[in-house]
Amino acid sequence: MQQIEHIKEFGGWLNRYTHPSTACHCDMTLSVYLPPAAGQGPVPAVYYLSGLTCTDDNVRVKAGAQRYAAELGLALVMPDTSPRGADVPDAPDRYDLGQGAGFYVNATRPPWDRHYHMLDYVTEELPALLEAHLPLASGVRSITGHSMGGHGALVVALRRPDLYRAVSAFAPICNPTAVGWGEGCLAAYLGEDRDTWLQYDATELIRAGKTFPGALLIDQGTDDEFLADQLHPQALATACRNSDQALELRMQPGYDHSYHFIATFIGEHLAFHASALRDTG
Amino acid sequence: MQQIEHIKEFGGWLNRYTHPSTACHCDMTLSVYLPPAAGQGPVPAVYYLSGLTCTDDNVRVKAGAQRYAAELGLALVMPDTSPRGADVPDAPDRYDLGQGAGFYVNATRPPWDRHYHMLDYVTEELPALLEAHLPLASGVRSITGHSMGGHGALVVALRRPDLYRAVSAFAPICNPTAVGWGEGCLAAYLGEDRDTWLQYDATELIRAGKTFPGALLIDQGTDDEFLADQLHPQALATACRNSDQALELRMQPGYDHSYHFIATFIGEHLAFHASALRDTG
Repeated sequence: MQQIEHIKEFGGWLNRYTHPSTACHCDMTLSVYLPPAAGQGPVPAVYYLSGLTCTDDNVRVKAGAQRYAAELGLALVMPDTSPRGADVPDAPDRYDLGQGAGFYVNATRPPWDRHYHMLDYVTEELPALLEAHLPLASGVRSITGHSMGGHGALVVALRRPDLYRAVSAFAPICNPTAVGWGEGCLAAYLGEDRDTWLQYDATELIRAGKTFPGALLIDQGTDDEFLADQLHPQALATACRNSDQALELRMQPGYDHSYHFIATFIGEHLAFHASALRDTG
Repeated sequence: MQQIEHIKEFGGWLNRYTHPSTACHCDMTLSVYLPPAAGQGPVPAVYYLSGLTCTDDNVRVKAGAQRYAAELGLALVMPDTSPRGADVPDAPDRYDLGQGAGFYVNATRPPWDRHYHMLDYVTEELPALLEAHLPLASGVRSITGHSMGGHGALVVALRRPDLYRAVSAFAPICNPTAVGWGEGCLAAYLGEDRDTWLQYDATELIRAGKTFPGALLIDQGTDDEFLADQLHPQALATACRNSDQALELRMQPGYDHSYHFIATFIGEHLAFHASALRDTG
């Protein structure tokens, strides 16, 4: 793991790293914010999964999260949204498939199946790597994300509740098998058998009986331009009501899909994560 | 004045406008953040002048200022850094002259003298326009900025202390007539007579006896890559010591020139502005 940037912010350090990824078979880039408390010993980490077209740079520049992370003593782990590079397959005419659109799945269909293993990367490889090299408390993690990354956060928390002590999401794609963004990606990455898609759909996972021990915290703007066609929070809410899954879905009047929406509420999300990470630490 | 964006953030509204500028003889674009308190009546405004290469978009996305503005009941006015457009002269091979680099002067030399009147635009035209059309308290203003914009903030506050109730700056160009960035721009915009440059140099204005009624608050990172060659805060500090000008120059260890530095300290700057705007409001 090679450190390629080191920027002081709120008394801590915003670092960027590259490393060869065994899950994705390419070099991956990510950012980690280490709060001032990391100078005294290992700290809990909140993973933030970004949305379509993003790299690690969007959230670190636009969300205003580092201020809260510094105050709360949390590290922020900000991975990329897909494998990258000249050798990595892409769909250059599409923003919702290929590089920048890994959808946090393990792809099984060519040409995607060699590199597009973002599920393993985010849940297994990255925590092991970071907890070995940085002052991050072993196994003390939570996860959040935006849009495609909100989908990713909900899915990995429901599939691997042992790995995370809290989960939240901003405007997540709640039911990807039912919307265009999800159908396009999942067909390409997993093939036409829709049954294989269900393990990457938070609403379907809950319908199938998966649960997370804590409440799912979700903020969703009512003026989000993607709400009606792509996000479907009500499908998730219905699935949670019909199961034992606690959900706090907050419809936020007037907010859109942008980082201005995320910036408004990320402080409350990080406080929610900090509380869970402290309680069980 | 035409509103072209309207984004909810921290309970208030981040708006973007275009308008024909009489000072700059072209259409200008700017952003204004109106805090929730602006729904109840006019609020004070903090003007933020951006640095080289920026538009109004950099600060509104990167600084994390809206959170504090919402809490403090302050509007943020975020102008562009120069006139723009196909009809506006430019120096496309230079980032430090022409579009994106107006230096907050009134240019007197061709080809710049028709459009490059950012001093009049920022100090006269924009406050009159905004206070006529938006819920901004008449005459209740302060000013800050970064780098080239920090230079601009200090210069306009020293030249027109009647217009502003507080001034601060992040990593300002403190003595532009003595550094490359300033010499290159001032020669182009004002001509070779260096005496005409002195009215756009905060250090020289203080040497010439200009003062601002309140302290100048300046934050400067010690690891700023432009500190030694372009910024010269010690020249300003010496000039202030030799005059009656109060200065709070805070050398911030380890910080660079980026928006991560600004984000770290903008909360303290806005609290400083809010205090001055309230005291005399």
